[in-house]
Amino acid sequence: MLKLAFDGTDFHGWQRQGDYRTVQGVMEDVLRHVVRHPVKLTGCGRTDAGVHAIGHIDNFHTSFAHEADELMRAITSRLPYDLAVTEARYVSDDFHANRSSISKLYRYRVFNSTIRPVSQLCQRFVNHYPRHLDLDRMQRAAEYFVGSHDFTSMANVRGKRLTMVRNILRCDVTREGDEIIIDVEGTGFLYNQVRIMAGTLIETGHGRWEPEEMLALLELKDRTKTGFTAPAHGLCLQWVKYPEELINPVPIEESSDL
Amino acid sequence: MLKLAFDGTDFHGWQRQGDYRTVQGVMEDVLRHVVRHPVKLTGCGRTDAGVHAIGHIDNFHTSFAHEADELMRAITSRLPYDLAVTEARYVSDDFHANRSSISKLYRYRVFNSTIRPVSQLCQRFVNHYPRHLDLDRMQRAAEYFVGSHDFTSMANVRGKRLTMVRNILRCDVTREGDEIIIDVEGTGFLYNQVRIMAGTLIETGHGRWEPEEMLALLELKDRTKTGFTAPAHGLCLQWVKYPEELINPVPIEESSDL
Repeated sequence: MLKLAFDGTDFHGWQRQGDYRTVQGVMEDVLRHVVRHPVKLTGCGRTDAGVHAIGHIDNFHTSFAHEADELMRAITSRLPYDLAVTEARYVSDDFHANRSSISKLYRYRVFNSTIRPVSQLCQRFVNHYPRHLDLDRMQRAAEYFVGSHDFTSMANVRGKRLTMVRNILRCDVTREGDEIIIDVEGTGFLYNQVRIMAGTLIETGHGRWEPEEMLALLELKDRTKTGFTAPAHGLCLQWVKYPEELINPVPIEESSDL
Repeated sequence: MLKLAFDGTDFHGWQRQGDYRTVQGVMEDVLRHVVRHPVKLTGCGRTDAGVHAIGHIDNFHTSFAHEADELMRAITSRLPYDLAVTEARYVSDDFHANRSSISKLYRYRVFNSTIRPVSQLCQRFVNHYPRHLDLDRMQRAAEYFVGSHDFTSMANVRGKRLTMVRNILRCDVTREGDEIIIDVEGTGFLYNQVRIMAGTLIETGHGRWEPEEMLALLELKDRTKTGFTAPAHGLCLQWVKYPEELINPVPIEESSDL
């Protein structure tokens, strides 16, 4: 199991895509050199182009039989400046970065000031929204997203699935200085879901809807009736939760699954 | 008076230089459009290519006679994503961003971890130094820099001046999580001085010199005997101090100096 951090600005998302620079592409190339066999990396999920991560979880199977720390150093020395491995451990054979996950937390950062976010040197990681936002309205609206709902209204139409129902465990809006932070924890997400939820909360904070209208927006099941898709660069995958028994470190002899 | 913040990564330093993208160049072009006359911007100092600032002070003379807030909005709407004006005010005619300054604080950030700084999404603003650093040694060494010294040993040879004596008011080394922060306050600096001081402190932390050797290094007056020039991207100009009476806001009618 590997934990990755990346600045998504110059990546075309996580998933390998032809000649585009993607996280999976860069990682698989580096891993092949380090473990000396081809590697198929399994990710906890795809992230869109421009989205960042500080806790992206990936796994792969390997015949490499050295300490995880050694592997981490070997990988690190070959990584570009905008990608880091922050943890490496051998885990249970049953671990699957995507299917084993219990929940994920995405954070959307809004820099709500007439001044530009460059004053905090964070302009690559926040969405600058200079107009007035009412935090209380955003907080009250966010509560309506918690629970199992059909999120057709909040998904990119290209992301049609058998079921559009997703379970949101938490949706918190807080302010830290000039930043408004939207934390969304869920068991799984539809395509662009968090960015559309963030865009809808931002527009609610600016007055387009009343907080109480959120359920009605969901019930419309119509993407054209909800908020804008907030820009990718404000979004970051913070962490992914797994069952303890699957991620407890396993000695090398007992596993070849990293 | 304008207070600027910029991400120095894509600027060729502050000072206008032919066709290079510089802060002065971008600002003077924007200001000319806003105030509708040519502008010569005076800066508190030049910063090297790649160095950042969150409190760079600049001033210029203008016939523009609108509220400073209005000017700030007009400028902001024309600035690129990596440059911000965080404050604008009319000040005394006697104000000169460079000559009036009392002191400046530069901060050098070292990310001291085997893990890459991308895990904190700060890799553009810190110098990654993965090897062991002894904070106590760095703190003790830093104290020797405080006071008036000939800093020939710690200046780029291209920066020869009539006197190489500079007065350092403060040189503090602190740790915040994985970061080691070097704060240097001085009345003025030689070319590359803070970066060479930082490089020498880093090498002292790693064991190349004893803290007590710092004065001897200064007395050698030999640049080749001191530490490496720490990379530009770890450095940020934090603030500049001026006499209160010069920067108190002045009503527009009394001044045309911004």
